[in-house]
Amino acid sequence: MARSSKLSGFPEWLPAGQVVEQLVLDTARRVFELHGFAGLETRSVEPLETMLRKGEIDKEVYVLRRLHAAQSEADPGLGLHFDLTVPFARYVLEHAGQLEFPFRRYQIQKVWRGERPQEGRFREFTQADIDVVGRDALSFHHEVEMAVVMSSVLADLPIPPAVIQVNNRKLAEGFYRGVGAPDAASVLRAIDKLDKIGAEGVARLLETDAGLSASAAETCLRMASIRTVDDSFADAVMSLGVADPMMDEGVAELAAVVTGANARRPGSVVADLRIARGLDYYTGTVYETQLVGHESVGSIASGGRYDSLASDGRQTYPGVGISLGVTRLVSILLGRDLVEVSRSVPSAVLVAVVDEDARADSEIVASRLRARGIPCEVAPAADKFGKQIRHADRRGIPFVWFPDVAGDTVKDIRTGDQVSAEADSWSPHISDLHPTVTPSSSQEARP
Amino acid sequence: MARSSKLSGFPEWLPAGQVVEQLVLDTARRVFELHGFAGLETRSVEPLETMLRKGEIDKEVYVLRRLHAAQSEADPGLGLHFDLTVPFARYVLEHAGQLEFPFRRYQIQKVWRGERPQEGRFREFTQADIDVVGRDALSFHHEVEMAVVMSSVLADLPIPPAVIQVNNRKLAEGFYRGVGAPDAASVLRAIDKLDKIGAEGVARLLETDAGLSASAAETCLRMASIRTVDDSFADAVMSLGVADPMMDEGVAELAAVVTGANARRPGSVVADLRIARGLDYYTGTVYETQLVGHESVGSIASGGRYDSLASDGRQTYPGVGISLGVTRLVSILLGRDLVEVSRSVPSAVLVAVVDEDARADSEIVASRLRARGIPCEVAPAADKFGKQIRHADRRGIPFVWFPDVAGDTVKDIRTGDQVSAEADSWSPHISDLHPTVTPSSSQEARP
Repeated sequence: MARSSKLSGFPEWLPAGQVVEQLVLDTARRVFELHGFAGLETRSVEPLETMLRKGEIDKEVYVLRRLHAAQSEADPGLGLHFDLTVPFARYVLEHAGQLEFPFRRYQIQKVWRGERPQEGRFREFTQADIDVVGRDALSFHHEVEMAVVMSSVLADLPIPPAVIQVNNRKLAEGFYRGVGAPDAASVLRAIDKLDKIGAEGVARLLETDAGLSASAAETCLRMASIRTVDDSFADAVMSLGVADPMMDEGVAELAAVVTGANARRPGSVVADLRIARGLDYYTGTVYETQLVGHESVGSIASGGRYDSLASDGRQTYPGVGISLGVTRLVSILLGRDLVEVSRSVPSAVLVAVVDEDARADSEIVASRLRARGIPCEVAPAADKFGKQIRHADRRGIPFVWFPDVAGDTVKDIRTGDQVSAEADSWSPHISDLHPTVTPSSSQEARP
Repeated sequence: MARSSKLSGFPEWLPAGQVVEQLVLDTARRVFELHGFAGLETRSVEPLETMLRKGEIDKEVYVLRRLHAAQSEADPGLGLHFDLTVPFARYVLEHAGQLEFPFRRYQIQKVWRGERPQEGRFREFTQADIDVVGRDALSFHHEVEMAVVMSSVLADLPIPPAVIQVNNRKLAEGFYRGVGAPDAASVLRAIDKLDKIGAEGVARLLETDAGLSASAAETCLRMASIRTVDDSFADAVMSLGVADPMMDEGVAELAAVVTGANARRPGSVVADLRIARGLDYYTGTVYETQLVGHESVGSIASGGRYDSLASDGRQTYPGVGISLGVTRLVSILLGRDLVEVSRSVPSAVLVAVVDEDARADSEIVASRLRARGIPCEVAPAADKFGKQIRHADRRGIPFVWFPDVAGDTVKDIRTGDQVSAEADSWSPHISDLHPTVTPSSSQEARP
């Protein structure tokens, strides 16, 4: 199930890898819909001005131009979207009059970023997002809900355990203000580099770029090292002796998310105060997600609360969302051989062809099986049966059907068992009906 | 269910429109998988040289560049793919050693063309393709199969009747040669303009551009006017007095497709000798599809046989495929009000919240319903029940659930019926479980 990556950063899977990705997509969609999120797609392009207003991502945007655009043609300034949140905010503003709020939507699409490719980081990748957006106000409980829904998706997949790490921008920014930081955003950006440059590097940045004293920098780093599985982080924060009303609000919200999510899905969420999220638009809860044993690849599901991403001057549409990095997750599963796929074709049955003149008989058998939801294909040539069986075997198709005027038979080519069968009543075992994806022995072997 | 098109050629649907598109996508995928086609995705970009070698489509390609690409950065010359056939052919060549042939795949993705937008013609749109590709050879019967599978998809959708129009390049090119055309391709290009410029205009083109005599042009136009629901087109062609061995081969193949497909799906296919298909790479059967009553919008499913699209010099990979124009079809259904959607959210049930302190009770009800596959959402606020019911009503959610220590009840808000219910056993009628899409009265009223 090797990956192909002939064009760096633009991954493509072989058919078995595609089965894994499809399982991730189907699981996300099923769980999202069970929670009442409506499917939505936005166009792949946005005006550059829409994208460059948000975040610090401008250097990563791909710009489009028609190959033979006339010189006189006005440049529309379109780029491929780099996430699904900014387009969604634009969509909400554009259609606010036709939507019901709070508006719950999921969105599964490709996004593009011209970043330097590395493991788990691509130039084209698929995200699966959920967001809830209110008009003027959005209840806090949706910040708990995001973690619960994403945890439900991850728990339904044949992957290593995943833990959602939660922090709160109000806690962080209030804390930084409380230690006397002149600009909370630059502290946030420095803390965000902890994984990359380590505590010492961040301490230096906090003093040089964020204008903190050595002791204030030290206090911020101690805060960022707090990680608890329950609301005990609050005492740890308080013990640092920093006071700020916005910080208190953030502490209370973070405690509510950790307690609320873990009450509904035990062990799904931890409070982790180093989580910063690079994007500027978050204003409350922020999420990242570690796949246990594969933390170095980065977060597989991230998001947060944003209060002012969508605003038309008269009304604002505060929202909260979380985004599953589908391509990153699948690339880990494939690249590290964490899953096994039962077969790479949907067919449960190959219907053999006795001779080319009797192909229609085999097609009729196939139609009857399909009418009852059994995926199957008819052998491409009336070769010797041994060759037709090998055709099925090479694709992992478990059953071969032999039409016969004296009575059809079907053979399980794994066991060799061959039994009489009627195309209107025979069914494979449910576990053979569709390709399955299971944890590989290398995943099972993990502690 | 109005369409939005704020950026011309880049369509976006409202949530109800998205339900329609999702039904088309789900139906296509289900039917494709039942026929043993494996899902595949290719990256959205291809090197320009890969795309410009094929077809006459170069002026429509969107080229990518990173917004802040360094001057020194080598231009990789990447463009967004304009169809799914050329990328698939490239994928087959790249992975031939890891694929089993004949290789059956479906591919559902967006494609981009910088064309002038008009009804049914977009700059970004979704296609759903199936192809079968062989190594060195591919049996003819797959040319029948393509029509049968696409007809099965269309018949499973709540849309007006669709007819697949089939022609054969060998028939057309042999015939043109037989009437003495110096260049069959220029005759083909002229005939392809019949819809746009009419018979007189085409006759002129055939004389001026394709170098035909007036009588040869007349004969070609008479051939292009032949349309039969069975293989009687063959006699009509023969009566024109043109003889060519390649033409004979094409006549036999076309007769086999029309007879074979109509035997399996009566009325699905007609022989229509004006069908040309613009793309250069077709070498045998070609398909277009009319939605009856909406012919002017153009074909909703097109494709054909291609013998030399994928070749690495040592081996060739002949194929045949057909592509459903998902966005075009959905735009007709929405723009012409041909369908009705029961609701635009997945939720079958809104679980009411008695007061905010009791939100957890409502969440537990919702979890139990979801565990049995019933999509639901919990009311966003503990408003008066009347307001919570209106919340459901505005979204088309048919049921509201009232948790109560004295025993829960569930209300069908369309009828007002309210009954006692247990979250572990109650189910909505299967017809209310998911949003449904049905033909609208305007479609039913058609003859």
